[in-house]
Amino acid sequence: MTQDAARALRAFVAEREWAQFHSAENLAKSISIEAGELLQCFQWGSEADPDEVAAELADVLTYCLLLADRLEMDVEQIVLDKLAVTATKYPVEKSRGRSDRYTEL
Amino acid sequence: MTQDAARALRAFVAEREWAQFHSAENLAKSISIEAGELLQCFQWGSEADPDEVAAELADVLTYCLLLADRLEMDVEQIVLDKLAVTATKYPVEKSRGRSDRYTEL
Amino acid sequence: MTQDAARALRAFVAEREWAQFHSAENLAKSISIEAGELLQCFQWGSEADPDEVAAELADVLTYCLLLADRLEMDVEQIVLDKLAVTATKYPVEKSRGRSDRYTEL
Amino acid sequence: MTQDAARALRAFVAEREWAQFHSAENLAKSISIEAGELLQCFQWGSEADPDEVAAELADVLTYCLLLADRLEMDVEQIVLDKLAVTATKYPVEKSRGRSDRYTEL
Repeated sequence: MTQDAARALRAFVAEREWAQFHSAENLAKSISIEAGELLQCFQWGSEADPDEVAAELADVLTYCLLLADRLEMDVEQIVLDKLAVTATKYPVEKSRGRSDRYTEL
Repeated sequence: MTQDAARALRAFVAEREWAQFHSAENLAKSISIEAGELLQCFQWGSEADPDEVAAELADVLTYCLLLADRLEMDVEQIVLDKLAVTATKYPVEKSRGRSDRYTEL
Repeated sequence: MTQDAARALRAFVAEREWAQFHSAENLAKSISIEAGELLQCFQWGSEADPDEVAAELADVLTYCLLLADRLEMDVEQIVLDKLAVTATKYPVEKSRGRSDRYTEL
Repeated sequence: MTQDAARALRAFVAEREWAQFHSAENLAKSISIEAGELLQCFQWGSEADPDEVAAELADVLTYCLLLADRLEMDVEQIVLDKLAVTATKYPVEKSRGRSDRYTEL
């Protein structure tokens, strides 16, 4: 994320004095809760209202940013770090065009 | 996100020809699955290994970025747009220091 | 559930002295975590290995039974009670053959 | 479950012609969605309204029963079968009073 969203979220939380509720555990619960609401857009099929998806995806991202902020993690960095790990588990030649887990490649 | 992570993810997916598996519905399922793995870091208590949390949070973020990319949404923008909506539901004076839902403020 | 499974679970937990970890909150987290593992069987498509589905569904049910036990709720009764509520929200004539939420019927 | 709840659910679904929406995949998504709503009762703390917990737990159980029914699985049996597997992973003497995963015992 650019710092804009993170900064806006920090200000939003600060003026409401909500940091007291944002333990890492509560934020992890919140990410699961919002992920369920996002999934609800697809509960009975593959088609979903783009506006609803955007609003629910935003909620998941918001709690992810708050958790990263709480744990002083750089979202950009952890995504790139994990991608490097995943790349070693899924070599291009073995995983191309396959959705199998690396344990079954 | 800055475009670096999004660009790296796009290249990672492209060389593995995985876009075919990344329907919006499958990505929404993946976000819930990874959110559950993140929550597992806190299953029995509030303390968690920061490295494990970073790795699981990265997985949630990765699928969020892929879903935004799939639906051509700007993650920065949808987070800020949703924040504006939430701000109207949770006026500072009514929500300060309270974790109640806006329906109970 | 017949009391067999509930009784077997109680004995299993008791001899391991695990009740101390089974707060209602921890069990609710565990249900979400296991629900994510069940969903993983269907991450990339609608086909899944029945044995894997049975094992993951069993984990979700196990934590549901432990939570009901913890809160002294009769699973049979709460399911029937909720069904009565749902029946009033989804009258047969309005909901037949439709997957819409009751708010949109 | 005794057959009462399963039978009541079957009748409820049949008169609404909802079986067409109840693919195993859609029911697995539904279990995750409802597990998130149950977790929401504990989003900001360990205390929750018992009536809300009962209603949300009932929803998780309902979709679990529908999935078991769909796949012709006996919920009682799969819970007991899984318990036998878990018992071998968590021998009493090694796991007593510990919440560690079997891989760390």
